[in-house]
Amino acid sequence: MHADDLILISVDDHLVEPPTLFEGHIPERYRDQAPKIHHKKDGSDVWIFNGAVIPNIGLNAVAGRPKEEYGIEPTAFEEIRRGCWDIGERIKDMNAGGVLGSMCFPSFPGFSGRLFAAVEDKDLALAVVQAYNDWHVDEWCGSQPGRFIPMGLPVLWDAELAAAEVRRLAKKGVHSVTFTENPHTLGFPSFHSDHWDPLWQALSDEGVVLSIHLGSSGQLAVTSPDAPIDVMITLQPMNICAAAADLLWSRVLKKFPDIRIALSEGGTGWIPYFLDRLDRTYDMHHLWTGQEFGDRLPSEVFRQHFLTCFISDPVGLRLRNDIGIDNIAWECDYPHSDSSWPRAPEELAAVANAAGATDAELAKIGHENAMRWFSFDPFTHRAKADCTVAALRAEAAGHDVETRPHDTGRFQRTTKGADLGELAAKATA
Amino acid sequence: MHADDLILISVDDHLVEPPTLFEGHIPERYRDQAPKIHHKKDGSDVWIFNGAVIPNIGLNAVAGRPKEEYGIEPTAFEEIRRGCWDIGERIKDMNAGGVLGSMCFPSFPGFSGRLFAAVEDKDLALAVVQAYNDWHVDEWCGSQPGRFIPMGLPVLWDAELAAAEVRRLAKKGVHSVTFTENPHTLGFPSFHSDHWDPLWQALSDEGVVLSIHLGSSGQLAVTSPDAPIDVMITLQPMNICAAAADLLWSRVLKKFPDIRIALSEGGTGWIPYFLDRLDRTYDMHHLWTGQEFGDRLPSEVFRQHFLTCFISDPVGLRLRNDIGIDNIAWECDYPHSDSSWPRAPEELAAVANAAGATDAELAKIGHENAMRWFSFDPFTHRAKADCTVAALRAEAAGHDVETRPHDTGRFQRTTKGADLGELAAKATA
Repeated sequence: MHADDLILISVDDHLVEPPTLFEGHIPERYRDQAPKIHHKKDGSDVWIFNGAVIPNIGLNAVAGRPKEEYGIEPTAFEEIRRGCWDIGERIKDMNAGGVLGSMCFPSFPGFSGRLFAAVEDKDLALAVVQAYNDWHVDEWCGSQPGRFIPMGLPVLWDAELAAAEVRRLAKKGVHSVTFTENPHTLGFPSFHSDHWDPLWQALSDEGVVLSIHLGSSGQLAVTSPDAPIDVMITLQPMNICAAAADLLWSRVLKKFPDIRIALSEGGTGWIPYFLDRLDRTYDMHHLWTGQEFGDRLPSEVFRQHFLTCFISDPVGLRLRNDIGIDNIAWECDYPHSDSSWPRAPEELAAVANAAGATDAELAKIGHENAMRWFSFDPFTHRAKADCTVAALRAEAAGHDVETRPHDTGRFQRTTKGADLGELAAKATA
Repeated sequence: MHADDLILISVDDHLVEPPTLFEGHIPERYRDQAPKIHHKKDGSDVWIFNGAVIPNIGLNAVAGRPKEEYGIEPTAFEEIRRGCWDIGERIKDMNAGGVLGSMCFPSFPGFSGRLFAAVEDKDLALAVVQAYNDWHVDEWCGSQPGRFIPMGLPVLWDAELAAAEVRRLAKKGVHSVTFTENPHTLGFPSFHSDHWDPLWQALSDEGVVLSIHLGSSGQLAVTSPDAPIDVMITLQPMNICAAAADLLWSRVLKKFPDIRIALSEGGTGWIPYFLDRLDRTYDMHHLWTGQEFGDRLPSEVFRQHFLTCFISDPVGLRLRNDIGIDNIAWECDYPHSDSSWPRAPEELAAVANAAGATDAELAKIGHENAMRWFSFDPFTHRAKADCTVAALRAEAAGHDVETRPHDTGRFQRTTKGADLGELAAKATA
């Protein structure tokens, strides 16, 4: 298939929260306590909430920049591409990148909103989570019908409230909620506890997918403090692989057969090996460990419950039928450093064609699987013929995607040669 | 290829240390302090050394047992198959299993001998390591010329002594030394420190491979204390994947171009995805992280330095040319629970034939790669025609491999339903 003819829905992108996010959404009594942007003397913009200072990290908003300028320094809004946080500019960038639909993960609250869960005043925490979700659904997604798969932040500290928020969001048409790779590492009961049953029940009842993003456990795959950062970047999918194993062998899938989980930014090339290892572990060990899946293999259970996705994965595409052609979705990862935006369609077409993927398979991977898993139908808002990469790019004509943001001279100065311990300390400060 | 015609050298098996190991090898002055076997009142045999009590773990010696009896209980020598610790019986089991050659990892000292490194009296520690190595090379391997790839334990606490031991062993014909996946987690300087340079130099000079076994970091891939043990079994290869990334991006391979590393029991099906991720990480990030491999890609660097291996890996066999046909070796994993002994040749042949592997490729995977990487030539001791699975099994005729060991009624009683925290505590007690 030619890149122009693809129809692309990305199940993993990111937004940088705009300074005005909470205005009009947070109850008046919490107005002073809501997260606020502070412009620091060093030129960077940071979020202040509950005593914590959270920088906008450069590496999380490098769309449009040359790779030499990548880095993890704190940045200012004026230094990052406007499409990261401005919905109007975002749509232009999506059009320029040929991307029809997008599901956007949060930035400063953490992928699973753990920043909000850390607040002692749980009424405030709930107000902030709900304000964030209302902004995300009503403003970010709502202002551009048919272009975004809405996704809510979870209530991490209370399973009953988590269930209630899932049900509240479902009424607003939301079929995706983020969650952490591992609640245990965040100090909550693990996936093996019955603590989360109200949440599983609500997700099952409402047809909401749990979207677990790589890195959402709050743990980095760091081998040692003096390891080059390349080690951590390479190993990022490990925690999501652990999450998949954790959930697969847990009581959750046995008790809640309708639960569905998306392994966001997890990649796909490792899945066939993983499935084989699941089945072999079952074969060699279940007679003494007590696991029981009836007449099914763990790999079949996986395919019933898990959606995988990739940015560009030659191995995963070649092995698409070992993974399950209905279990693979594409992602753009805009505006992160792993994204190939705005040339992602060309990259996908090249890799898919090399792997011999058919048009029908590319339709599943490009948009049909995302539509089915997340109950999302952009074609009710826009004729399918107007949804292709070529059609969207025609709308974007004249929108210059290559121009780098305003250069303050601060961006990407200090990273090179820095060690991982220092970087990790900065990134999690 | 028919299983009968395979010639098989296993690059990852295990031995259970016999009670008499240190006799005749430990200097007289350390005789009382050397590790000793104690038969406990509960019927199990444990090693006692330096105040530590180390049980022989059932799951590590289940060869010949039905899977229902697998478990991690401490066991007695009389409960485990004699081939685990008796060299004469081991050869019979190798013949019955069609296995020509074997490289045997240690049991009670830990895969990298960290038990010995923990002794405060470093003269004693060195005496114990050297006694172990002399027993392993001269008795275990030496009594059966051409059947074992000798492998030494490392000196973990002193890089100069580690180098000296590598050179001492090399003079005895040893081309493999075990090491840990991650020295940092054991409290030693990481792979990124120059601390280990004397060791890297000795390995380079002497043509000795560093054999890094899965699990040798002393860390288990445990997601939470209440996770079923199946999660940990599934995720075991993660630490070895981390070790591969750690070393690949380290200064070691850049400074010591002759270093070679075997990822023992690491599996192979994940390698193509891993190589792709290495190359993508390099492409997307090296301009700001500062990594530099000249005109080569990280995947090419990997193939120069790393040997991978598998027990039975349908995905890895299909992708053998993406991994590198000269970088894959077969392993039996006798007598551990993941082994298919004594039917491993049939399993390998079935999987390889399904993957369309040629006879020449199976010769590389089955024995030629192991011979080249570890400078091991069994054919100087035995005509090649007498080395096939069929020929070895003919020698073993009458040796009953299916009979279970003496059943004391203790084996595999308490494991089912136990939680992982409890099991892990037992296993590391």
